[in-house]
Amino acid sequence: MLSEYRLKRRVQFYETDAAGIVHFSCFFRYMEEAEHALWREAGLNIHEAGRGIGFPRVATSFEFHRPLRFADEFEVCLRIVGLSRKTIRYSCLLTLDGAKIATGTLVVTCVRYGPNDELASTEIPREIADRFAVASDAARDEPSQPASVEP
Amino acid sequence: MLSEYRLKRRVQFYETDAAGIVHFSCFFRYMEEAEHALWREAGLNIHEAGRGIGFPRVATSFEFHRPLRFADEFEVCLRIVGLSRKTIRYSCLLTLDGAKIATGTLVVTCVRYGPNDELASTEIPREIADRFAVASDAARDEPSQPASVEP
Amino acid sequence: MLSEYRLKRRVQFYETDAAGIVHFSCFFRYMEEAEHALWREAGLNIHEAGRGIGFPRVATSFEFHRPLRFADEFEVCLRIVGLSRKTIRYSCLLTLDGAKIATGTLVVTCVRYGPNDELASTEIPREIADRFAVASDAARDEPSQPASVEP
Amino acid sequence: MLSEYRLKRRVQFYETDAAGIVHFSCFFRYMEEAEHALWREAGLNIHEAGRGIGFPRVATSFEFHRPLRFADEFEVCLRIVGLSRKTIRYSCLLTLDGAKIATGTLVVTCVRYGPNDELASTEIPREIADRFAVASDAARDEPSQPASVEP
Repeated sequence: MLSEYRLKRRVQFYETDAAGIVHFSCFFRYMEEAEHALWREAGLNIHEAGRGIGFPRVATSFEFHRPLRFADEFEVCLRIVGLSRKTIRYSCLLTLDGAKIATGTLVVTCVRYGPNDELASTEIPREIADRFAVASDAARDEPSQPASVEP
Repeated sequence: MLSEYRLKRRVQFYETDAAGIVHFSCFFRYMEEAEHALWREAGLNIHEAGRGIGFPRVATSFEFHRPLRFADEFEVCLRIVGLSRKTIRYSCLLTLDGAKIATGTLVVTCVRYGPNDELASTEIPREIADRFAVASDAARDEPSQPASVEP
Repeated sequence: MLSEYRLKRRVQFYETDAAGIVHFSCFFRYMEEAEHALWREAGLNIHEAGRGIGFPRVATSFEFHRPLRFADEFEVCLRIVGLSRKTIRYSCLLTLDGAKIATGTLVVTCVRYGPNDELASTEIPREIADRFAVASDAARDEPSQPASVEP
Repeated sequence: MLSEYRLKRRVQFYETDAAGIVHFSCFFRYMEEAEHALWREAGLNIHEAGRGIGFPRVATSFEFHRPLRFADEFEVCLRIVGLSRKTIRYSCLLTLDGAKIATGTLVVTCVRYGPNDELASTEIPREIADRFAVASDAARDEPSQPASVEP
């Protein structure tokens, strides 16, 4: 059972903006890259054509402490901080040479696709849920609102 | 003095993902588009080459209620909900045909660029601060109190 | 029958890069935005869920003459320069205040989606092909003859 | 002296679109990632703040043969096929498990930044040009127009 993934990543030029730093929207892409890498390491594909279920994002946030610039090689540490029947909660810490760059949160929920692409809330299939566990020190690592980690 | 901007926008194809909906990172771009349009309506350019100051993002969030799909024409309503000497706080509501799609928050701070692109916190210049005001019903609209977002 | 579309568009901040100009990959998005707007003006949706056909891109190019910067308001002029049973060819001219910024080409082909998302070449349905025509001065505008692009 | 770079890359979810495949604009980003990796391997940074020169793109193209989908792990092979006093020409081949996905071209030129961000054509500095050479089999590999490889 996995609880955490550490992704090494380099800033690409198209992720920077005219202020010379990574555009803030890209941090959400970095966080999702780490999530998908965590799923792959668990032997899972978060978006499998034809499976009939998906994991849309229901809430996300980032606090930015220092900028990232072109070619910086940073680390994304993603942890599972909450796991309920229908929902997974992650926290995320970006660092560059040990310095804190940004902290993020992400909540995803399991849905079943209906006939007209309607999304209906559903339970996370056991073969998926069984691969993940809440990080043992999740409360300590939740970036900003530890009291609200899912019961 | 301006407090709010309403932006009409259509979903572009490159903003959708393989789940058939707008990728969640794009909502932050929509919110920023509305912010920059608000500044333009106030006669300001948020990123002026050579001015020596900038407005990096320090915190942002979104809650997603319903998906957007290709070609949807939605509305972004951005409001100023906080204005201090160095910081502007916005809240944001995305709607599609009157239905709530997502609610966001954004906090930006004023910095002065140093010799090596160092960022030093500084006060918002008066000629900028004087163009903006907190929305009169900002407390009611703060997304952190979701029950009160919509009238 | 339509042959051309003129799109007014403003450069968004997230489209710029650390060189202070629009990233070259975004020009392809601008060209596609104009294509989809042309289809909408013809009463068509180029990507309709459940229709079973699509229009993948088979070849595209751009030549860049001058940069675009944040907040520039430019024009995209897209023209149909070729129309065969299975293929549509466009040429594209981007201008800023009348100055030539870039010239592009795009070729799309009609495919039918098979059971496993296989793509099989197919004829453009008549109800689509009947809405479009080759621009009368297409030969003159083909970007591969740059001297004749502008009147 | 380097002439070629092979980049392994996985398709990220935000690079797919509602047709279930990688959006065509992302191929240009993949090609540029390989270019920047080639420069890094040569001990160079293509975008160095304060150096006063840059390498804007002047022309680029892609032909698309097969689609890429989420999580595909593909290879980008970038080669230098032309090198003159002011210009570098690359060709690019994307493959997935040995199957040809797409072929691209990219031409970049050296410019000096003037006082108002004006771009003036200039010679590639020797310490950069000396690190690169045209691939010995460049003519053979040029995807579509071998006769036009730079004299």
